[in-house]
Amino acid sequence: MSMTASFDGWMQTVQVHVEDALERFLPAAGTDPARLHEAMRYTVLGGGKRIRPLLVFAAGQVSGAELDVLARAAAAVEMIHAYSLVHDDMPCMDDDALRRGKPTVHIAYDEATALLVGDALQAQAFDVLAADPIVPPARLLAMLRVLAGAAGSGGMCGGQAIDLDSVGVSLTQAQLERMHQLKTGALLKASVMLGALAGRDIADTEQAALATYSNAVGLAFQVVDDVLDATADSATLGKTAGKDAAANKPTYVSILGLDASRALAQTLRGQAHEALIPFGEQGRRLRELADLIVQRKA
Amino acid sequence: MSMTASFDGWMQTVQVHVEDALERFLPAAGTDPARLHEAMRYTVLGGGKRIRPLLVFAAGQVSGAELDVLARAAAAVEMIHAYSLVHDDMPCMDDDALRRGKPTVHIAYDEATALLVGDALQAQAFDVLAADPIVPPARLLAMLRVLAGAAGSGGMCGGQAIDLDSVGVSLTQAQLERMHQLKTGALLKASVMLGALAGRDIADTEQAALATYSNAVGLAFQVVDDVLDATADSATLGKTAGKDAAANKPTYVSILGLDASRALAQTLRGQAHEALIPFGEQGRRLRELADLIVQRKA
Repeated sequence: MSMTASFDGWMQTVQVHVEDALERFLPAAGTDPARLHEAMRYTVLGGGKRIRPLLVFAAGQVSGAELDVLARAAAAVEMIHAYSLVHDDMPCMDDDALRRGKPTVHIAYDEATALLVGDALQAQAFDVLAADPIVPPARLLAMLRVLAGAAGSGGMCGGQAIDLDSVGVSLTQAQLERMHQLKTGALLKASVMLGALAGRDIADTEQAALATYSNAVGLAFQVVDDVLDATADSATLGKTAGKDAAANKPTYVSILGLDASRALAQTLRGQAHEALIPFGEQGRRLRELADLIVQRKA
Repeated sequence: MSMTASFDGWMQTVQVHVEDALERFLPAAGTDPARLHEAMRYTVLGGGKRIRPLLVFAAGQVSGAELDVLARAAAAVEMIHAYSLVHDDMPCMDDDALRRGKPTVHIAYDEATALLVGDALQAQAFDVLAADPIVPPARLLAMLRVLAGAAGSGGMCGGQAIDLDSVGVSLTQAQLERMHQLKTGALLKASVMLGALAGRDIADTEQAALATYSNAVGLAFQVVDDVLDATADSATLGKTAGKDAAANKPTYVSILGLDASRALAQTLRGQAHEALIPFGEQGRRLRELADLIVQRKA
């Protein structure tokens, strides 16, 4: 995985690595209970932009981590992300029928299976990460705590809960920011931290710089999501467009308007770049990912 | 926690320890997001027989583990168990309104909150266990894998999936056994193994003996559950009685009849006792727990 490869080349290499790792770390197709395992594989394999795995690998260039460690950590994060999408799409949450251009799990299978797929994927994520044979055990425990903290009520689940309580409520920009910091930001930040922890010792100042980068990129991700939800069509997004407005959910676009939201995304991109200056060329992939996240069309 | 105390005295001491640990290891009441945290505490605190924590502490007498380690491991297992009950009670699964004598979470709160409570409790369980400051890191990773393996598709979630596929189907006793080994047996066995791993090194022969004990107790637990479901009333059980028969689910009672089911429970109790012989007096609490599980009335 050359440092000098084009960004697209690097990204494709990472995506192949991650797909291969997911393939290996998911229960094999056909093993008992076959329907659940099939549904887990349907959920995770062959789709998605793999933004979180890309962040793991990009941060791994800062820490000089081994590719096998990064692939395992990336697979674990992606399983957490995938489970959250399955549960989020269920009728009692967003009730969505389309995800990554395919029927959602409760449509393709049934609600009970969707519930179990999510539950089993979360357990699988922790099992996969805890099984790493390379990282020193104490460091691996720190990585597990980063992942668990980002997934739980102080992270992703907490953000979902705030989101539920926000429907039809008028939020300030600060409140919206807080919700997204938990709902999507926490796992994006965890991805960066997992990559950073996977290699050499990272100094406190470096951790702080990566946290600044992660916070900026996490927010930018959400601002762009809101812009795309308001402007792109479902076919491009691979999921139902315009659903936030339809659900009367507060978004950056509803609070700031479209132009100010786009400007905010660019400001956040600048902050992300600035935070990476100390890392020089080792921060290149993280810098390029910030660009991707802000400039993406889906 | 004296080895010579009465079983009831020992049990009450453990239950107080575990309640205290759960209280400390759950997110504090009133912290943001307050409604989710309140629902997590509603789910976990102040109820249940705490069979799994009791197994952790009883096995901890075999390994000579520290009480603080056992309390943490017991809290983690109980959080996994509690989350599974919340999800299992949801409308898309068993659709149950009563649990531990209280309204289930999706009734007391709402379905989306129940979903998030379960998801957040699972993450919390792994976070709590990974944060143990006493157990050597490599051993702690082994404990995390025991818990994750028992929770995932090769354990509890897998058993739930087989259960879903079994409604209205005629199972053999062997198939029913396999379902319960995963659905409830895996987490009961994990409880024993966590207690065993929490202290001194356990020899392979000791691990095998504890596995034999766990398998017998796990099955006995389910056989007795089926007997109680067919014979006790809802008020005594603290949950809806007779629902397996109503749902046309295969049970030990439906396959073997009531008398043979009761006899099977006694046979399994004998097997559990026999497996503990090598441990002498250190196996006392495990032996007493096997008796409790077989003789319980609710």
